[in-house]
Amino acid sequence: MLYKTCVAVAFLAGADAFQVGSLASRVNAPKVSMAMAEAVVASPVALAKAADEARGLAIDSISKAHSGHMGLPLGCADIGAVLFGQEMVYNPADPKWLNRDRFVLSAGHGSMFLYSWLHIAGYEALTKEEVSNFRALGSITPGHPENFMTPGVECTTGPLGQGIGNGVGMACAAKMMAAKLNTAKHTIIDHHVVVLCGDGCLQEGVANEAVAFAGHEKLDNLILMYDSNGVTLDKMAEHTQSEDVQMRFEAQGWEVLTVDGHDMDAITKAYRYAKDSDNGKPTLIVCKTIIGKGIDEIAGTCAAHGEAGVKYQDSAREALGLPKEKWYVSPETYSFFANHKKELVGKYDKWMATYNAWKGENAALAQSLEDAIAGKVPDLDKLIPTYKEAGKGIATRNAGAEVLQPIAQSMPFYVSGSADLHGSNKNYMKGVGDFSKSNYAGRNFYYGIREHGMGAIMNGMAFYGGGLRVSGSTFLVFSNYMMGSVRVAALSGLPVKYIWTHDSIGVGEDGPTHQPVEVIAGLRAMPNLDVMRPADAEETAAAYIHSIITQDRPTAMILSRQDLPVLAGEPAMKREGTWKGGYVLVKETAPLTHIILATGSEVMLAVEAAKKLGPSVRVVSMPCVEVFERQSEAYKNEVLPNREITVACEAGYTGAWYKFAKKVLGVDTFGISAPAKFIFEEKGITVENLMNVAKSL
Amino acid sequence: MLYKTCVAVAFLAGADAFQVGSLASRVNAPKVSMAMAEAVVASPVALAKAADEARGLAIDSISKAHSGHMGLPLGCADIGAVLFGQEMVYNPADPKWLNRDRFVLSAGHGSMFLYSWLHIAGYEALTKEEVSNFRALGSITPGHPENFMTPGVECTTGPLGQGIGNGVGMACAAKMMAAKLNTAKHTIIDHHVVVLCGDGCLQEGVANEAVAFAGHEKLDNLILMYDSNGVTLDKMAEHTQSEDVQMRFEAQGWEVLTVDGHDMDAITKAYRYAKDSDNGKPTLIVCKTIIGKGIDEIAGTCAAHGEAGVKYQDSAREALGLPKEKWYVSPETYSFFANHKKELVGKYDKWMATYNAWKGENAALAQSLEDAIAGKVPDLDKLIPTYKEAGKGIATRNAGAEVLQPIAQSMPFYVSGSADLHGSNKNYMKGVGDFSKSNYAGRNFYYGIREHGMGAIMNGMAFYGGGLRVSGSTFLVFSNYMMGSVRVAALSGLPVKYIWTHDSIGVGEDGPTHQPVEVIAGLRAMPNLDVMRPADAEETAAAYIHSIITQDRPTAMILSRQDLPVLAGEPAMKREGTWKGGYVLVKETAPLTHIILATGSEVMLAVEAAKKLGPSVRVVSMPCVEVFERQSEAYKNEVLPNREITVACEAGYTGAWYKFAKKVLGVDTFGISAPAKFIFEEKGITVENLMNVAKSL
Repeated sequence: MLYKTCVAVAFLAGADAFQVGSLASRVNAPKVSMAMAEAVVASPVALAKAADEARGLAIDSISKAHSGHMGLPLGCADIGAVLFGQEMVYNPADPKWLNRDRFVLSAGHGSMFLYSWLHIAGYEALTKEEVSNFRALGSITPGHPENFMTPGVECTTGPLGQGIGNGVGMACAAKMMAAKLNTAKHTIIDHHVVVLCGDGCLQEGVANEAVAFAGHEKLDNLILMYDSNGVTLDKMAEHTQSEDVQMRFEAQGWEVLTVDGHDMDAITKAYRYAKDSDNGKPTLIVCKTIIGKGIDEIAGTCAAHGEAGVKYQDSAREALGLPKEKWYVSPETYSFFANHKKELVGKYDKWMATYNAWKGENAALAQSLEDAIAGKVPDLDKLIPTYKEAGKGIATRNAGAEVLQPIAQSMPFYVSGSADLHGSNKNYMKGVGDFSKSNYAGRNFYYGIREHGMGAIMNGMAFYGGGLRVSGSTFLVFSNYMMGSVRVAALSGLPVKYIWTHDSIGVGEDGPTHQPVEVIAGLRAMPNLDVMRPADAEETAAAYIHSIITQDRPTAMILSRQDLPVLAGEPAMKREGTWKGGYVLVKETAPLTHIILATGSEVMLAVEAAKKLGPSVRVVSMPCVEVFERQSEAYKNEVLPNREITVACEAGYTGAWYKFAKKVLGVDTFGISAPAKFIFEEKGITVENLMNVAKSL
Repeated sequence: MLYKTCVAVAFLAGADAFQVGSLASRVNAPKVSMAMAEAVVASPVALAKAADEARGLAIDSISKAHSGHMGLPLGCADIGAVLFGQEMVYNPADPKWLNRDRFVLSAGHGSMFLYSWLHIAGYEALTKEEVSNFRALGSITPGHPENFMTPGVECTTGPLGQGIGNGVGMACAAKMMAAKLNTAKHTIIDHHVVVLCGDGCLQEGVANEAVAFAGHEKLDNLILMYDSNGVTLDKMAEHTQSEDVQMRFEAQGWEVLTVDGHDMDAITKAYRYAKDSDNGKPTLIVCKTIIGKGIDEIAGTCAAHGEAGVKYQDSAREALGLPKEKWYVSPETYSFFANHKKELVGKYDKWMATYNAWKGENAALAQSLEDAIAGKVPDLDKLIPTYKEAGKGIATRNAGAEVLQPIAQSMPFYVSGSADLHGSNKNYMKGVGDFSKSNYAGRNFYYGIREHGMGAIMNGMAFYGGGLRVSGSTFLVFSNYMMGSVRVAALSGLPVKYIWTHDSIGVGEDGPTHQPVEVIAGLRAMPNLDVMRPADAEETAAAYIHSIITQDRPTAMILSRQDLPVLAGEPAMKREGTWKGGYVLVKETAPLTHIILATGSEVMLAVEAAKKLGPSVRVVSMPCVEVFERQSEAYKNEVLPNREITVACEAGYTGAWYKFAKKVLGVDTFGISAPAKFIFEEKGITVENLMNVAKSL
């Protein structure tokens, strides 16, 4: 690997611009010869020009919107030039190319960075008009990047730190895909994942969780570029941080390089070093930048962060050598990038040839990959067990464990994982191995006690493409540690599956810190998230199938710690009813006088109460309010014809049930530490109380 | 400080048991003489006996409950003996003593550690019967520690990582109280904060945020004892972590010491070093322990974590030398701790004398402290401005900024802060300084971009006692980054105040990642949290006053980014109405036909719609659903007499409004990036639509 050696020496030669480690003793210095210190940017003039024009696009768009963040697009323009103009491998004509380098803008407020470079790079959807309509209604250039809105945007970012977790997830995905697909003869996956972040991202705990995980799992295909500009929104960064970032990352198993973020040669060398070194370490490239570089009045200060530079638009454009025409990109720059695109398409075509050759020799594997990418799903309804034995006690988390096994076997791209609670969440997939540095093909993830990191990593795998179907688990109450990631999944339409066990006061002895009485209501308020709280093993089977068939939104599965009886009723009726979100579980046999609506562990109480109340009482099980709401008005009215005779029962917050029911029996206070049956009594969630409430209607 | 020197040499002499730093070059080695390597545990036999009896209590209680976590109480028993039997300064007869050392069990699942030691130490409420009723209904020994349940329990813990943040908050509080109260002549505050945590706590992002903050602010009164047992719940810890914890903490400005966690001498020396060194660094003491030590069959394995040791109860008790009597504490141990308690009470009495002398010479300061501790509040209703000028546009975040200033001036123990968004949240208190390593008396906190850490630190300051009134801010949408802490605050009844600005789709151009359409509904589902969404500046004033008068629960203030007009109506009526949670803002002047119920920025639309609809329409403003729900049935019926004629309007999740209204106009989808007025139109939150919905009733 002569090349690598050559690059490495350049680092050491140009110590001002580039440092490997801060303490030689802590760094495995690459072996070097002193011969090769030449520049590695082939077209420095063209790229510098493009960088200044990208700055101009950001200045013009943010000035027009009078809103946005100039700091990063200006401060990181030189990094953008290197990445999009020379180093990264991508194809603007096929933004979903499986083996593209993934670029994540974790510091999502710097969105004009992305839009400028995607435009310049030749992503056709990013017309100049779209760029100029930044933050306007109907544009594809929203205030923060949205993956579902803009071709070339890999991840929805903005909530800080998430993008780092997404990058780690993408790096996991790439490692897994490489392990599954590459053969001795053909390399299908060998791309890199590049994340650009700022101080804000690195201060966030979610990022630290992901960083620790990445170092532990030796994700050396991950390159984190840190826009180290010494500024946060409120103050100079030194006001809130003094940690030695390099030392922290080295402690967590990363390689750390430091460069002048405006020296394109240094950036390139560091990038290539990170890309080429097979040292089992992800790489942090600390890019020392001047925030807002290009607007002298504010550059290097926290004023540069937002839109304060707007008033200097004209003078800054002039100083950058831009003509009066706004959103100016020179013919030279367009031409340079058109040529670069040709080069990239050449690489793409070459990869396509490799892929087709590989496909010819590995037909079954290729088919399974293409099926996964196309979202094809095996006939799970047949594969997944049916629970017929009414009355048999089985915790829905245990039912989940059973249901998961045929999924694991029939869906080679389905991944599971837990934040250190496999033993309790029961979502371990047997016989498919553990994902780890020694087995990237394994499909059970051990995330450690890192719920938020898990959420962001799961999103990253889902953003990745490649057909991965991602699920992960923790206790329901700790879903609130990962809500930042759940929200991004819902907004982005990622079909991730959350297995959140240890539902409600049924948790018992662990007490109120572990009893989620309010959590489900909060989740139901989230747009685009299906929250399923199955009542028994059969509804759990149906919920799992729903979570897999659903491909445009996440599903949360809320499973019980405690045993629940398999409810009487035709399994097929229950399964299909679950897929409608709510259904008549017990049909009245006399003229209807009361409806008891319940979910999860309270459905058994509803059935019992109805039996005692008499034949005119109907029981409706509603495992998923969101799915039910999507049914026709006719169906909904058929199931729940009359709010005035309906009582709802769920061992949690009552407030959101009044849409369907006149009275609600629930739990609006925190729980208690005691065996579960005592808590249900103490909180009044009993058959007797339910009967009384029903009678009081 | 000869003593300190003496201790330090002992460290270096006993290198196996105790190491300062891992690389000499990275450690400021204390100056030492080689003369003093003697033992520092005065009664090693008594403490060792107590430790084994504490192990026995844990084994017996967990065995009886058949539920709980043995690993930590057994693994850390020797640490407990040192802390409770010799080193920490506290008074079981006055658990709220202002200058007590604070002990936080961050690894809250190890609650039997606390209950055992509090019992042995002589906290009278912790009778043997209570200890034996661990996790039973009605006991004061719940599954995880709850501060409101058990004297001597400083914090509610269990959700991992929180306790580290709480400890950091307590250390901040102690630094602030010392800076405010201590005089040249009298030292009122000089205690320490001790946190015991495990691997789980350290893996959590919230902990990392707090750790970075503590190092940055040089909180050298903080001692973090890390139960480093190499085990997490699922696996040996090495399965998910490989970071160099010492190096990470050193990078973050901490001193790190490593000891054998079963060597009481080494623990003591490290503790004293941490306590006595004024090096401007918080200290991490890595205690290498054997999880479950005392039950040979499981010790050192992940099986020891939970209750798997129950079946070895008898043999373990025998091996520990315990008699057949369960929950056995020997007369010798009781006697030893009774003597120790006398010694502690002596320190307490001495402090009391100092306090009284200080009080004599600093009457005004002492009065303000005692008023703060007693929860006395100035007459805020008079101090806080009244907003009379109907129609004047003022964002409620800006009204908040105005309202906050007289609070800052009149309440010397009120603290504010922001997660890097002071400029946007507008909750900076003028003229009271910034809390920092160079000014611990400052009352504005710059938390950095660390929302979850902020939440846990805020809780720590509130748990601390001492009369601190704690508020902090970020964007409303990022409240979901800190929900883990908010939940603990609500459960624990901490009167912290959240200033969450940038409400709803009104955020505008920043787009859906920043527009909280679902967040308020989720917060309202949380028990014991008052969520106030004021409609104008006057309601904001009332909300602030409410947040301060309320002392048994947190208040969330939801404030707008955009200008809102001051609504017509007597300010006093609006202020008092806000204190009732909901009130008739516009009274109908003809027989009532419609009620429009609204909150926050939608009340102005309701007023406009009512005006157009005619004199028979009432407008109800409901800034706080929770407070409204606590009013009498009579009042509630007076304000909202008829659900069938009521329409609710709020620019967020509709589902929870059907309790009060037959129809709801809201936003059940994610937002859009555009100027706010376009989004309100796009989402149909307009006067015209509201009129149409009202007419459709």
